[in-house]
Amino acid sequence: MLAKTPKPPYYAVIFSAAQSANLDGYDDMVAKMVELASQQNGFLGVDSAQGNPEITVSYWKSEEDILNWRSSIEHQEAQKQGKESWYDAFEIRIAKVARAYSFQK
Amino acid sequence: MLAKTPKPPYYAVIFSAAQSANLDGYDDMVAKMVELASQQNGFLGVDSAQGNPEITVSYWKSEEDILNWRSSIEHQEAQKQGKESWYDAFEIRIAKVARAYSFQK
Repeated sequence: MLAKTPKPPYYAVIFSAAQSANLDGYDDMVAKMVELASQQNGFLGVDSAQGNPEITVSYWKSEEDILNWRSSIEHQEAQKQGKESWYDAFEIRIAKVARAYSFQK
Repeated sequence: MLAKTPKPPYYAVIFSAAQSANLDGYDDMVAKMVELASQQNGFLGVDSAQGNPEITVSYWKSEEDILNWRSSIEHQEAQKQGKESWYDAFEIRIAKVARAYSFQK
């Protein structure tokens, strides 16, 4: 259920967003983007918590993999729609994961 | 509504968790921990998306600030209760934020 990532270091894209009142087509686009991202080179996993705010964190092998995903055509179209319709505000942070700890019951 | 952080670099604690069926006392503890964290040295902000998974990302000036918060007594008590009651699994990742982009409508 939670993303299973390898031993650090690797990279994270932290996306936090304030959703707008108009969420038409949003769920379908999220599912499509998760599927597309998972086919990209260097994709390691993703966790997404829906709600307001929404937080989605995707994990990647390298910064180059993140740049490639960021510039893919379908992803750019989703970003455009996100700005026009679904989000009042968002913040994207690119971070290098240095340490990780797990707990499992 | 979303955390307002300074220009990078700074540090992020990415907490992703699979919640258990027992959430007694959980909301109160989250509110208390957010309040306590915001009084710590080096605290820059926090975003939390409730749901299953839950994702909470807090932002800090330095890795030392994160270690201090991690070892504070009240926080350790909350971590203990989290493991015993509220979470089936969680992952904590410490990351250095290198770049950030904002969108605001």
